[in-house]
Amino acid sequence: MDRAATNDLAARAEARHLDAHDPLAFARERFELAPDVIYLDGNSLGALPKTAIDRISNAVRIEWGRGLIGSWNDAGWFDLPRRVGDAIGAMLGAGPNECLACDSTSVNLYKALSAAIKLNADSKRDTIVGHVDEFPTDAYVAQGLVQQLGGRVRLSTIDLDRADAFDARTAVVMLTHVDYKSGALREMRGVTERVHAAGALVVWDLAHSAGAVPIDLHAADADFAVGCGYKYLNGGPGAPAFIWVHPRHHRRFETPISGWFGHAAPFDFSPQYAPAEGVARAGAGTPPILSIIALECGVQSIADLGIETLREKSIALSELFIATARKHCGDSIELASPVDPAHRGSHVAWRAKGAAAGHEYAIVQALIARGVIGDFRSEGGASGLIRFGFAPAYVRFVDAYDAAIQLADVIATESYLRSEFRRRATVT
Amino acid sequence: MDRAATNDLAARAEARHLDAHDPLAFARERFELAPDVIYLDGNSLGALPKTAIDRISNAVRIEWGRGLIGSWNDAGWFDLPRRVGDAIGAMLGAGPNECLACDSTSVNLYKALSAAIKLNADSKRDTIVGHVDEFPTDAYVAQGLVQQLGGRVRLSTIDLDRADAFDARTAVVMLTHVDYKSGALREMRGVTERVHAAGALVVWDLAHSAGAVPIDLHAADADFAVGCGYKYLNGGPGAPAFIWVHPRHHRRFETPISGWFGHAAPFDFSPQYAPAEGVARAGAGTPPILSIIALECGVQSIADLGIETLREKSIALSELFIATARKHCGDSIELASPVDPAHRGSHVAWRAKGAAAGHEYAIVQALIARGVIGDFRSEGGASGLIRFGFAPAYVRFVDAYDAAIQLADVIATESYLRSEFRRRATVT
Repeated sequence: MDRAATNDLAARAEARHLDAHDPLAFARERFELAPDVIYLDGNSLGALPKTAIDRISNAVRIEWGRGLIGSWNDAGWFDLPRRVGDAIGAMLGAGPNECLACDSTSVNLYKALSAAIKLNADSKRDTIVGHVDEFPTDAYVAQGLVQQLGGRVRLSTIDLDRADAFDARTAVVMLTHVDYKSGALREMRGVTERVHAAGALVVWDLAHSAGAVPIDLHAADADFAVGCGYKYLNGGPGAPAFIWVHPRHHRRFETPISGWFGHAAPFDFSPQYAPAEGVARAGAGTPPILSIIALECGVQSIADLGIETLREKSIALSELFIATARKHCGDSIELASPVDPAHRGSHVAWRAKGAAAGHEYAIVQALIARGVIGDFRSEGGASGLIRFGFAPAYVRFVDAYDAAIQLADVIATESYLRSEFRRRATVT
Repeated sequence: MDRAATNDLAARAEARHLDAHDPLAFARERFELAPDVIYLDGNSLGALPKTAIDRISNAVRIEWGRGLIGSWNDAGWFDLPRRVGDAIGAMLGAGPNECLACDSTSVNLYKALSAAIKLNADSKRDTIVGHVDEFPTDAYVAQGLVQQLGGRVRLSTIDLDRADAFDARTAVVMLTHVDYKSGALREMRGVTERVHAAGALVVWDLAHSAGAVPIDLHAADADFAVGCGYKYLNGGPGAPAFIWVHPRHHRRFETPISGWFGHAAPFDFSPQYAPAEGVARAGAGTPPILSIIALECGVQSIADLGIETLREKSIALSELFIATARKHCGDSIELASPVDPAHRGSHVAWRAKGAAAGHEYAIVQALIARGVIGDFRSEGGASGLIRFGFAPAYVRFVDAYDAAIQLADVIATESYLRSEFRRRATVT
């Protein structure tokens, strides 16, 4: 056995040792995960919590099948958006009736941006400010709102780190907490202070941080936040999203989509809209109950684990992964994420270099064929970022280690050049 | 045996005879329905199609649990909103890529109203016209849009049957096809012609007609339509809704909520929004997959039955119910629905008269306690309408007959006066 192999054995044993002493190791059992899969895409779709299997089956067979319309009361369907919203809010430093589970992140961002503009309607402020490298769908939503409002509001897309990013025309700044590509983590409190100092409001998109990164919306003094249910909250495919509104805005904020689920008394069927108290008014139409039940299972699968403990493990996993990948891949990859884990969320992104440069899509496909599931984010065609997410509730240290070794092997053996890995599918 | 009882036995036998010769009788087996329940609330929440039990379980355990992120391609999740939308559209006389399953009815109505206003933006037309007795959540949505657009658009709520209902300021008229209270069915083609003659656009809400009443959106020359997935389409609690847009508007209509699921190439992650072709651009955020899968099962449960056959049975059921109820209830009830079945959707509403007047809520509760499930729509407190829906795919003639007899008995024996039937629950 040569020295490299010996080192590898020792390094893998060290990863196993970390798993053996991981205070969160027990939590992996809460999820359905095939033994031959290393799942590093929980930042795109969280794994299935085992509780969801029976809970959803019960909701279908018993609550819908037998309880029928009565289940709106008897099975608590009516309360689900608030109940699940409160459970998510509790992870974000929020109190009751500040966070609502409903609609999609896009729809909730639309509501938040429109409400923030409206709160500033008496001022000369007419500009939504977004970051240059904003998550595209967030940019699309802002573009659509500007188009709809036709001339009354404009969108400015700039580098938010510039000192002159905000001015007297800034009405609302929209920011993603963790960048979907690089994983860069924005400091929430400081940026919010800068926005407030400029007299504007802030909407945070927590899609890539809720459930993986400690967040305290009150300590940061944020105005609005939205986020995704199907990433680190494990809520299932297309799970409903959430919206949070700071209590200081509860009396005045207006949701543009004022449907009956945001009404103060929906079952009075009164002809005039009257908004519910608190964030509940952000509700619009009837919520998709089966999907919200799955989201509740997802939230419950991590709610008791402690966000500080989850964060500590997330950092340890990604640090191990980065160190191992760097050691074994050498110059064939370049880290596209912040080096300092304090400035990084829970995923790590790479670009391929040298002979492998531009083959990022194929590398991801070759890894998937080996059971190592990360994903690809295009920066033009098949060239882009290789992303690996470390959902700390179920990813093991040995997974992080093995994934790095497989990445190195796929590149070293050039197996990504095989034709079946180079055809792009529709999605991921 | 007295003559009345003899008549009853003969009448019930006649109902059974109708079931025995019902060409749709076989379809009831497609649904989970407890033998001791007469379910006449399919207009609020359709019954559970048996296929949904395994299909959803499979989606949870196999597609989500094992397929993980890959199921967006491998299990066809990405195509679901279009596929299910096309299947719904086929029932409405629509072609492919004209109807999309997404979001809630409220959110889709909001999109349609905003898009219709925008299509008229070059004109002096600034008014959304709605009917006085519009479904409240539709009115709320229009109120919210007007509030958001602040002064540029106004809402006019009038009697749409008046000759002067529309004028040169009318931009868009929103109409429910079947009234949620009375069940009154509006003639779609004629009203649409009147709206177009006035130079305005029309948005039809098909919530209480899709799946129960023949609809041909092209023959009616409608502009936009929205509707509900969880009533006659049997899509499950809070099922996603649908939106339809006439092809003549496909190139120009703008959805206000321009999220990535309406983008021409969502996975290019380009910074600029570019709308997809056809109705697909009405998509916003990631769709709630588990709930859309349930909706697909619901749509499939009736898609092959033929809307004309369904309509014929629906009318026969409600006519039998009305005749039996009138015969046995006498002056204690009054029909709140059109007498002519050609002007009625698939539900029937009553008000109580005489000693029972104002006790409608308690009457519904007393019936539910006997296993006859209808619902109550308040017109102020516990006074209002008693609604019975006749979903023709699974309601039997003997159900219609027995429900009428039970209604008569609850009123005759004054069992609705018992205190447990008089406390109002949150919902239904």
